[in-house]
Amino acid sequence: MNSKRIGVLGGGQLGRMLVEAASRLNISITILDSPVDSPAKQIQATSRHIHGDFKDPLKIQELAQNVDILTIEIEHVNVETLETLFSEKRIEIHPHPFTIRIIQDKFLQKTHLSQNEIPVVDFIDISDRDSINIAVKKFGYPLMLKSKTLAYDGRGNHIIKSEDDITKALETLGNFKNPLYAERWSPFVKELAVMVVRSVDGVMKSYPVVETVHKENICHLVIAPAQHDSIILGRAKEIAEKAVLTFKGCGVFGVEMFLMKDGQIYVNEIAPRPHNSGHYTIEACQTSQYENHIRSILNMPIGSTSLKVPAAAMINVLGKSDNLQETLSPCVEALTTSGATIHLYGKRECRKGRKMGHITIVADSISQLYERINPILKMIDENDSSITTTRSNIQPLVGIIMGSDSDLPTLKPCAEILKSFDVPFELSIVSAHRTPMRMVQYAKDAHVRGLKVIIAGAGGAAHLPGMVAALTPLPVIGVPVKGKTLDGVDSLYSIVQMPRGIPVATIAINNSTNAGLLAVRQLGSFIPNYLQKMQEFMERQENEVLTKVEKLDKVGWENY
Amino acid sequence: MNSKRIGVLGGGQLGRMLVEAASRLNISITILDSPVDSPAKQIQATSRHIHGDFKDPLKIQELAQNVDILTIEIEHVNVETLETLFSEKRIEIHPHPFTIRIIQDKFLQKTHLSQNEIPVVDFIDISDRDSINIAVKKFGYPLMLKSKTLAYDGRGNHIIKSEDDITKALETLGNFKNPLYAERWSPFVKELAVMVVRSVDGVMKSYPVVETVHKENICHLVIAPAQHDSIILGRAKEIAEKAVLTFKGCGVFGVEMFLMKDGQIYVNEIAPRPHNSGHYTIEACQTSQYENHIRSILNMPIGSTSLKVPAAAMINVLGKSDNLQETLSPCVEALTTSGATIHLYGKRECRKGRKMGHITIVADSISQLYERINPILKMIDENDSSITTTRSNIQPLVGIIMGSDSDLPTLKPCAEILKSFDVPFELSIVSAHRTPMRMVQYAKDAHVRGLKVIIAGAGGAAHLPGMVAALTPLPVIGVPVKGKTLDGVDSLYSIVQMPRGIPVATIAINNSTNAGLLAVRQLGSFIPNYLQKMQEFMERQENEVLTKVEKLDKVGWENY
Repeated sequence: MNSKRIGVLGGGQLGRMLVEAASRLNISITILDSPVDSPAKQIQATSRHIHGDFKDPLKIQELAQNVDILTIEIEHVNVETLETLFSEKRIEIHPHPFTIRIIQDKFLQKTHLSQNEIPVVDFIDISDRDSINIAVKKFGYPLMLKSKTLAYDGRGNHIIKSEDDITKALETLGNFKNPLYAERWSPFVKELAVMVVRSVDGVMKSYPVVETVHKENICHLVIAPAQHDSIILGRAKEIAEKAVLTFKGCGVFGVEMFLMKDGQIYVNEIAPRPHNSGHYTIEACQTSQYENHIRSILNMPIGSTSLKVPAAAMINVLGKSDNLQETLSPCVEALTTSGATIHLYGKRECRKGRKMGHITIVADSISQLYERINPILKMIDENDSSITTTRSNIQPLVGIIMGSDSDLPTLKPCAEILKSFDVPFELSIVSAHRTPMRMVQYAKDAHVRGLKVIIAGAGGAAHLPGMVAALTPLPVIGVPVKGKTLDGVDSLYSIVQMPRGIPVATIAINNSTNAGLLAVRQLGSFIPNYLQKMQEFMERQENEVLTKVEKLDKVGWENY
Repeated sequence: MNSKRIGVLGGGQLGRMLVEAASRLNISITILDSPVDSPAKQIQATSRHIHGDFKDPLKIQELAQNVDILTIEIEHVNVETLETLFSEKRIEIHPHPFTIRIIQDKFLQKTHLSQNEIPVVDFIDISDRDSINIAVKKFGYPLMLKSKTLAYDGRGNHIIKSEDDITKALETLGNFKNPLYAERWSPFVKELAVMVVRSVDGVMKSYPVVETVHKENICHLVIAPAQHDSIILGRAKEIAEKAVLTFKGCGVFGVEMFLMKDGQIYVNEIAPRPHNSGHYTIEACQTSQYENHIRSILNMPIGSTSLKVPAAAMINVLGKSDNLQETLSPCVEALTTSGATIHLYGKRECRKGRKMGHITIVADSISQLYERINPILKMIDENDSSITTTRSNIQPLVGIIMGSDSDLPTLKPCAEILKSFDVPFELSIVSAHRTPMRMVQYAKDAHVRGLKVIIAGAGGAAHLPGMVAALTPLPVIGVPVKGKTLDGVDSLYSIVQMPRGIPVATIAINNSTNAGLLAVRQLGSFIPNYLQKMQEFMERQENEVLTKVEKLDKVGWENY
């Protein structure tokens, strides 16, 4: 396919997965890293790897002499050497050394982004203890104190909650041995990430926006696609792509972002390489971030970045202690989990917090995904607060709305049915005629909030079900409510006779029980648990009648 | 996960993909094969592979001394040595040497299957030229003459169409230097294959039945799942599992079958190892055949064999000549094909007919799959006859049924909507009143066959939707069909006014378009792709009206 030889600075798990992707394309990769058996070297037997530090100029030069293109799997490399090689035009380097230089220094990176009008959290340089006071005056407590360089996976961050914390913070961060800066404390509601890939000739594609959960500043869990409204996700993608455009060079970029309560999105940091939040792409996307990194730096066509499954998650397997067996307990669980794929990195030594592997889980729906990942997450931490059972329980699947509280008696049996089937639902008043804007908002947001079905009850000139159906892509079930005149036929016709293009699933007049049952059936098509409950319900129903048959036979019709 | 070391006899592409799967589980594999850089050795740098023939007893013994379990990636190994090692209980061997011995000799294999009541094509031993005449008398012309041993990838088969061909056939097959047998000529309508995996403790799981297309007796194309009716596919799976049960040992077995015109299924041959027809499982299934082979021989839990995508194909990349660039033209096409993943095997030398790699393509539907694979197939052969675009998906998500063919004009727009949204569906006649038992069968089976929604259209005393709803736990959408009297109100009431307990989602009279759209919405709640398509559909619908607004503004109402 391509005969150019690639040299990679760094031979950890990211390098390993790059090698895996390259091997499938018969592309040769040579690794520069100190351990003779570093994860990436283990699965590439045809190259003569270089055993040495990726900060060592001589070793980098040696690598450059043996390959056609240099790339990195870690940004903390000797960038001066790369700049020299680049300026002497001795070798192609992706990403551009200038990009690596900016990324290495988080303060420089934030300044660069800020100057290019990419939204970032407020930050300020910290040169001495006095400047901390200035930062506090500006941003108040709590204040985030951060190392500018060599900060990753939770190292190099410290929160200052009050003046008493300052000394401790400075000590932890090396008392100005490493340069520091401070950031305004910004409590986000969610962390988002986007992998962006750009080719030599500028073609750019983005992977889906994912949500990430960090624990002690290390990536713990990734959910793809992110469960948030599409406007926010669209903005996240836009910001990520705009941010990547400010950097030179091609390849894959990981953009990590904070989503604030008010919908504001800040770029937290960028990695100019494949990223932990993109591991899931191996099993869940049409082309993985690793293959696309290889393709893009070789100027080959970039593959599709779309999901090929409805939902996916990635769980990091971090060392619990130096006991490997203990650490691998989530993997043992994953062996019996449908849709789970285990990736171990071949690291010889297990240490607390060390990235030993990851597990990708794919599923047909987000709810199935949660069912699959929860037992694995529990093996990591029995009381894992990132576990999504509570969320999927609270998260209603069905929304019941009615035009007026006078419809409640008619809709109550529907709510009771959902409750008896253990379906999470919400119930509210939304009137098409009296609260039209509320109706628009409700219908527009419904699928974003995770609803799967809307049940709308209305009487007379019953517009609510049809209007909601006109505003949402979700299925809407309409319950015609019987009024004082016309026996509910007015309402039935108003709901059922929708024009071509916008359907409403209409059920019998006043029969909201059936609306609930129909909603359960719709869920049951995809959630086996509800399918089974519906079968049991139908059996019970049948048995109730059969019992009456028996009684009738026994007692006779005269005495029944 | 598991510290047992595996030794593999053979280091070709199957071995390579075994190594890939094993590496992800940190399981060590040592390869025995002659080339120092055989495909499997290239991606495993931590083992001290053995360079030698997998038929050489000393080399096999050397391998056995260095590992805990032996397995094979090719069955043409020295089975006597394996039997000795096994009988001396010196090492675990999977599959059982006895199984390998049977499989090696196709005549023995067929005899074994036949004795175990597995359906195979009629066959007869050929010991000399005279016995060919006996075979002709028994089976007539054309007659298949086959080598018993060392026959694979098209080698060792010859068709005898008339007496004149006999000398040529015998010459081609080595004039009795290798033992021969003959088979009745059996023109199949389709070739099917099933990968079956069995663990040490007897747990057995099957991958989906796939259809395979061979060219010059070499696997060319695999389509998963096979596009045929579910009863036939169910039988194929049953026969494959029954056949595997007749063999000792665990691991993955590839079962190739012929489907005849009359629905009869014959087992053609069995491979006691991962198989070309299972390559697609890497990208398309929850756990690949390679990982499951590893897991099963290590007595680890077998992973799910289900598809994780709706449809997949595998195209073999065979050497067109010794020109690698020419051979790789389908891969170049695949680089720009969504859902395509290229696997090259690292073979140094390209030769005509040599397996150089394969391409897997995944898709959201069978029709999308054909769209994606056709341009790739064309790069292999401009006039490839194995391509058809007209086949419909037999794994439908929606079932459309109607009481009578006279309802078809009313239901057609529904089918067209589903087609335009790329929803796999089936359409048939099921009458509540004229085919009540067919209706019961249809409704009872629907969810088992994977349907998610049933759309039922009926007129007059329209019982079909409600009766089907009474028999299935799935959501049923009812389409009232307008008759000659009563304007369809009879049908509407018959469908919508269901009793408490059994709901039917009723839509407007004769408006089957809306039934299709409602089904898409129900799928879209759980399958993001359909949700997005529904949003786009609604936007287009809105824009169409807005265009008319503009036109009306421009032209004025008098001239509109």
